[in-house]
Amino acid sequence: MARPMVLTRPARREPGSIGARFAESARACGIRTSDGELQTWFEDRRRANLFSVDRIPLSGLQGWHEHRHTGNLVHETGRFFTVEGLSARTGPGPDDGWMQPIIHQPEIGVLGIVVKEFDGVLHLLMQAKMEPGNVGLVQLSPTVQATRSNYVGAHRGRGITHLEYFAEPGRARVLVDVLQSEQGSWFLHKRNRNMVVEALDEVPEHPDFRWLTLAQVHEMLRQDNRINMDARSVLSCIPFEGADDACDWDEYRETLRRGLRDDLPTRHRDADNLLWLTDIKARAELHQRLVPLRSVRGWHRDEDAIRHDEGRFFEVMAVNVRAENREVSAWTQPLIAPTGQGMAAFLARPVDGVLHLLVQAKVEAGVRDVAELAPTYQALPSNFADLPAHRRPRFENEVLNAPAATMRYDSAQSEEGGRFHHAINNYRVIDVGTGFPLDEPPGFRWMTPRQLMSLLTHSYYVNVQARSLLAGLQTTW
Amino acid sequence: MARPMVLTRPARREPGSIGARFAESARACGIRTSDGELQTWFEDRRRANLFSVDRIPLSGLQGWHEHRHTGNLVHETGRFFTVEGLSARTGPGPDDGWMQPIIHQPEIGVLGIVVKEFDGVLHLLMQAKMEPGNVGLVQLSPTVQATRSNYVGAHRGRGITHLEYFAEPGRARVLVDVLQSEQGSWFLHKRNRNMVVEALDEVPEHPDFRWLTLAQVHEMLRQDNRINMDARSVLSCIPFEGADDACDWDEYRETLRRGLRDDLPTRHRDADNLLWLTDIKARAELHQRLVPLRSVRGWHRDEDAIRHDEGRFFEVMAVNVRAENREVSAWTQPLIAPTGQGMAAFLARPVDGVLHLLVQAKVEAGVRDVAELAPTYQALPSNFADLPAHRRPRFENEVLNAPAATMRYDSAQSEEGGRFHHAINNYRVIDVGTGFPLDEPPGFRWMTPRQLMSLLTHSYYVNVQARSLLAGLQTTW
Repeated sequence: MARPMVLTRPARREPGSIGARFAESARACGIRTSDGELQTWFEDRRRANLFSVDRIPLSGLQGWHEHRHTGNLVHETGRFFTVEGLSARTGPGPDDGWMQPIIHQPEIGVLGIVVKEFDGVLHLLMQAKMEPGNVGLVQLSPTVQATRSNYVGAHRGRGITHLEYFAEPGRARVLVDVLQSEQGSWFLHKRNRNMVVEALDEVPEHPDFRWLTLAQVHEMLRQDNRINMDARSVLSCIPFEGADDACDWDEYRETLRRGLRDDLPTRHRDADNLLWLTDIKARAELHQRLVPLRSVRGWHRDEDAIRHDEGRFFEVMAVNVRAENREVSAWTQPLIAPTGQGMAAFLARPVDGVLHLLVQAKVEAGVRDVAELAPTYQALPSNFADLPAHRRPRFENEVLNAPAATMRYDSAQSEEGGRFHHAINNYRVIDVGTGFPLDEPPGFRWMTPRQLMSLLTHSYYVNVQARSLLAGLQTTW
Repeated sequence: MARPMVLTRPARREPGSIGARFAESARACGIRTSDGELQTWFEDRRRANLFSVDRIPLSGLQGWHEHRHTGNLVHETGRFFTVEGLSARTGPGPDDGWMQPIIHQPEIGVLGIVVKEFDGVLHLLMQAKMEPGNVGLVQLSPTVQATRSNYVGAHRGRGITHLEYFAEPGRARVLVDVLQSEQGSWFLHKRNRNMVVEALDEVPEHPDFRWLTLAQVHEMLRQDNRINMDARSVLSCIPFEGADDACDWDEYRETLRRGLRDDLPTRHRDADNLLWLTDIKARAELHQRLVPLRSVRGWHRDEDAIRHDEGRFFEVMAVNVRAENREVSAWTQPLIAPTGQGMAAFLARPVDGVLHLLVQAKVEAGVRDVAELAPTYQALPSNFADLPAHRRPRFENEVLNAPAATMRYDSAQSEEGGRFHHAINNYRVIDVGTGFPLDEPPGFRWMTPRQLMSLLTHSYYVNVQARSLLAGLQTTW
């Protein structure tokens, strides 16, 4: 391809920068927790936390009821979240509109990781936390996952371990603090605060928490269902930099290292990527309106779940959770359970030696502003299995049938276990190589990992699946 | 004050950059249109366009009706906009919630200015356009104001002069293209596409359009009610730079010039401003829900308008518009009419010789994401006249009683005349000088004009009143 590359901006690498310190942590053995201790502790937490999660009929929900007029699923306290109906429309035609159940949770929570240097190396304080929808139930989570009512008001922080580092001024230095969206297919306008703070004093020990280097977190993230969605989202927002001093690397790592730098040529200028996205948002209509859950056409309610009439997409089901070591020792709640396993993948290739990812601007029912930047492919393949090829998502063949040798990252991860039941996505970064066409179908664009990461200082550019993949990609360098 | 200043980033000034080219245009006499011709043409347009706008009873609206179930004001075609009810809540307390009428218009329109060089100087193609709610009716507008249905689909561009430069690829080079919000008190989640494009070929002449230098536009913007809101919004998004080679300037202009540069110390780093805003958004709750207009408490409908029970805020009224030189020669429509004249002002002062503005993170009923950056003071003073001092907006005294000599910018401007009737704000930039305290009450922060302008490459950071003031500020250098 003969199109010119453009140089975005001059180099500005600082050895003591936050990005460089995290890059150092990504190469460091555990000082506070050895790899062996980590494995033992994690398995021990999974065993020690004897939770049981059992599916129950919708009518077995306690504290939750169907709202009299709307049929919405609401909690008697008005807290947590509601399941309502959404009417969405992407155009004037008869096939451009649909209705679906959606989770409505306008509160902003905190997903926060405390970091601290030990022997000059940043460590992340990770929590072993149970969430009823997680595969394996206990996964590594951010230091804190808190709702807004936890961190504001008179009782802030009480009862949530380490929340003071996020709620009280002067306890920590804020390194990352940005609102990011969550699943646009299942949530209406949902977002959380993604934070990383550096503790300024001693942090008390607690059996559910361990200090890990970024290298150790990365190793866990290469395994299936170990690092929860909230942690992956926060990790993606860290201003991670590739190191300069690498040697004996293979060619892929060299292109990735270059793809993380901000002083090398990119296919498109950063500013032009924003113009491109504005154009897509302005042309692709998305009208959203909450409607009574009872009025949602194409879905029905039976004893066990609210389901799509053709069995597609997802169902709203209910579970009973018993947690033997908690004050609240049992509760019931609704969860969303997708009808199949999902796939989220970036096709990647070097362009003049710099790794680029094929990014999709994706419209989803519940996004805040029409479209966000998403993986090349993001879908439940089973939703499309009976459709002709031209109606299936682009690049499906390249993603589903990728040769093992081209998969730089490939793992199964659970989506938010507090809202979704066994919502597993296979996350893949597939290096398609320089032979792959640089063409960009409408809605697709080649961008470097650094270009996507620099957008993560702002809200609602990069969707949660793309963020999970960026966190995964960082494990491969 | 002893707090340290921080240096944000190295200089990167490029002589041929877009910002530098607009700075050049801001000093250039009109080449295509002399100042005298401009005045003659503008007055002629005001005279030639014999529109009459008359208030009518709400029941006199034609094509508009009250929706049977909701009482919402809707057009029979489903086009244009609707007036609905909004239930807003900023906290759990009884005084934290309110209801109000609100304009709902989810479509994204284009506000676009075509620019072109004549004799090496950029000129802006401005339109003399009538809008029924404008003071003076005809004001200078962007080249194009178009709805989404105008610029997508089979008939794109037809009937709207010069729309092809925005709708057809290859006709122009895109310099600016970003979605920006509009009045959060009166619109729910409204935004438009702010564009500046440079024409690549000859642009046909048209009696309603003139090529003006930025200097000429600035001169009009220093007068009352000459430049419409859409034009002010687009002007604020231009990456305007201060010139380097100024001489015999007064001290204020020198501090402003320095406040437009990106290589000088600022009170806060750009990245820290974003962290500050995230914190505010996460702590200041805002829950929004559309409700039937009929169910809005605290408002009532009479023959002439929908009004607040205490006569505050605004009313929804109706007008009959007769436009003698149009295909559609008459129409009726609802408009929102505020109950008094508004005020939007930035307090400004140099900090170490660099002009800073006191920016407010303001929560408004209809904003897309809790809060946006707003002027120091933005209110209808009459809404607060009978309240005790501690319940009135901050800095009211400094703004309303500012000495004339401190006002660097002071003009009355109309808000969007297609939706608002004589909605006039006094826009002021008040130079309070180095004696003014640098304290920052909660929700306020000193930022340079350049810091605000750099956020205008992204959406929904800077609200429309602050953008009008930034456009006004640029006229003062």
